[in-house]
Amino acid sequence: MNSVNQVDMLKENKGSLIDGSITSPLGFLAGGLFCGIKRKRLDLAWLYSEVPATAAAVYTTNLFQAPPLKVTQDSIQSGGKIQGVIVNSGNANACTGEEGLKNALLMRRKFAEHIGVREHLIAVSSTGIIGEQLPIEKIEKGILNMTDFYQQNDATDFETAILTTDTFVKHACTELEIDGKTVTIGGAAKGSGMIHPNMATMLAFITTDANIQQDALNQSLKKVTDETFNMITVDGDTSTNDTVLILANGKAGNKELTPAHPKWHAFEQCVKLVCQSLAKQIARDGEGATKLIEVQVKSAESDQDAKKVAKSIVGSNLVKAAIYGEDPNWGRIIAAIGYSGIELDPTKINVSLGPYKLLENGLPYPFSEKEATNYLQQNETIQIFVDLSAASGNAVAWGCDLTYDYVKINASYRT
Amino acid sequence: MNSVNQVDMLKENKGSLIDGSITSPLGFLAGGLFCGIKRKRLDLAWLYSEVPATAAAVYTTNLFQAPPLKVTQDSIQSGGKIQGVIVNSGNANACTGEEGLKNALLMRRKFAEHIGVREHLIAVSSTGIIGEQLPIEKIEKGILNMTDFYQQNDATDFETAILTTDTFVKHACTELEIDGKTVTIGGAAKGSGMIHPNMATMLAFITTDANIQQDALNQSLKKVTDETFNMITVDGDTSTNDTVLILANGKAGNKELTPAHPKWHAFEQCVKLVCQSLAKQIARDGEGATKLIEVQVKSAESDQDAKKVAKSIVGSNLVKAAIYGEDPNWGRIIAAIGYSGIELDPTKINVSLGPYKLLENGLPYPFSEKEATNYLQQNETIQIFVDLSAASGNAVAWGCDLTYDYVKINASYRT
Repeated sequence: MNSVNQVDMLKENKGSLIDGSITSPLGFLAGGLFCGIKRKRLDLAWLYSEVPATAAAVYTTNLFQAPPLKVTQDSIQSGGKIQGVIVNSGNANACTGEEGLKNALLMRRKFAEHIGVREHLIAVSSTGIIGEQLPIEKIEKGILNMTDFYQQNDATDFETAILTTDTFVKHACTELEIDGKTVTIGGAAKGSGMIHPNMATMLAFITTDANIQQDALNQSLKKVTDETFNMITVDGDTSTNDTVLILANGKAGNKELTPAHPKWHAFEQCVKLVCQSLAKQIARDGEGATKLIEVQVKSAESDQDAKKVAKSIVGSNLVKAAIYGEDPNWGRIIAAIGYSGIELDPTKINVSLGPYKLLENGLPYPFSEKEATNYLQQNETIQIFVDLSAASGNAVAWGCDLTYDYVKINASYRT
Repeated sequence: MNSVNQVDMLKENKGSLIDGSITSPLGFLAGGLFCGIKRKRLDLAWLYSEVPATAAAVYTTNLFQAPPLKVTQDSIQSGGKIQGVIVNSGNANACTGEEGLKNALLMRRKFAEHIGVREHLIAVSSTGIIGEQLPIEKIEKGILNMTDFYQQNDATDFETAILTTDTFVKHACTELEIDGKTVTIGGAAKGSGMIHPNMATMLAFITTDANIQQDALNQSLKKVTDETFNMITVDGDTSTNDTVLILANGKAGNKELTPAHPKWHAFEQCVKLVCQSLAKQIARDGEGATKLIEVQVKSAESDQDAKKVAKSIVGSNLVKAAIYGEDPNWGRIIAAIGYSGIELDPTKINVSLGPYKLLENGLPYPFSEKEATNYLQQNETIQIFVDLSAASGNAVAWGCDLTYDYVKINASYRT
């Protein structure tokens, strides 16, 4: 990496992704193994920092918040530090009542004991089927099979072991220079199905070796999550288990980052870059999806208004099915703008599909249906641009098309 | 009909549907014909009252309200009376700007001239493709082919001519005794696709020979629409053209109905009965649907809260796909309750699927998966009951399952 160019790019708020993962930042190790919750595939993942890391998290807004989230919350609240994360897939430990909470606490304690740290330095996540008790004895055995973190260190195993109906692993990485030190930010995520603004069955783990104040980290994660993970939707449902967790272990040796640090903005942009990449990967891997849909809304009265419009379009079953059908059906885009719940002037709206203008000042623009259809056929990422011609509010949302396979997967998930 | 029994039933607020249609109330005629907007099927419908009828309407909340709605609004506001309704299918006359408004006005004028009444006694509706100008000359020719309303009177033709992707015609009828007179209420509707709370591409026309005050009719239609048409959802999208129109021509000869009339409540229940039947038919005929889903929520903090929960469940793609897959997946029902946006105590919730309890006090109840699956396989109407154990708020919502055919139909509607 040419760090001068990198810094220049960050000054321009562009940043770029590099090869890497959650184990790219200094002092992080991760892995995954099979403990028998799933039939065959890896189902137990661990993440470890050589030193306790400053931690922050954002959780699902679903009222049926699963026990593991309460345990992670308890750990972070108790001292703001996390050193180890244990994640199982195949069972969400949700709607499991007192026994579920007991199991989540046990999962934390067993992992803490095994690696020799205090319980409150451990975060716990679960994802999978709702309403069945965790096979805790399998997880305990799995933990005992973690014999040497350095030998078993394999980020891809971690990325694999957290998946449910996902079809590919998701990771992202970037770096920047702060106080003459290279600071790295890595991430891993799982999604697929039930993915919606306000977080659904999605888990994201971000690691960085930056030295950063906890309040600042917390505030930054909330902001970035709102602009990335909360701007994706697959099917409009939100789940019981979603969590975005960030760990910053300070190993890079920079001066403590706060909003007052000259590199604060650049750092935040890099966190956003990683989270945005993960969010897009999750949307692209929506159940049955064949295309990623990106909706950019500009010139709304406020960012909030722009978000509502972008989410309304990307969440419309009719728009999603039309894109799957490679049909430039702008009427459905218009309808979704119209019921988004914001005030707007219909006669000032412009809509484009990729490079093709479909609507000008609220009226159909004479576009070549053949070219627009061709655009839908040729591209894996479909962009919709909406200009509300009101003020300066902007937003971007991501989603995927609605396909036969979505119905197939979700008509028979449990059986 | 045994009118004594009928009245007794209505006293108990039960009412029952009878065979009949929009032409069952005295003094209403209706028909439909082919004018060439569609390739083959009937596409121009008319409704006529022998005398000007007191009128009220509810329109879509979509900001891209189509020109025909503005014209109907103008007519009703101008004197509160409607004598004729002209409806075309195949073209929604939406997003058509000035020219669209000119065409909707022309459609009103041509029909008014043809039947010899003032323009402001005419209501206009359109449904179909968005963003193309109305082939107004075809509609004009169609109007000229209406030669004798009494000879051409055929409610089924009307019901057929308003359809788009619907697979069956929709009508309902009931009657009750008021002041010793038989008052009849009939209805016709079209739906299918884009059907959602707050009305989507759905049209409903209600006729009655009741004598009723306009303010009372208006207020009653709003209330009934909120509890019926606004409680159905097929895909979460709302459209540009939806209208519920009620005409009351007074031919039954009862004393003017107002909320002070002793039969007011019974009359309103009968209007609700007709609207609820139409709403359920629309939901059952959702694009690609194989099952009607009915969600009953009780003991919420308020009716408003109960509505939110009922709509959240019936609008969940994951619940809809699970029911298509005949999978008693209560985890998705729970998730939909949890993100409905109301405050609730998760430990007090009971959920049943038909006769089978799935969840008690927020925890899985040991039900027979085989029996529950059997219930899903054997029934065309699937009922979900939710008890929030909070206060006395109730609501019912209707929707349909999410199927391969939904995707198929909507991936290729225009082509």
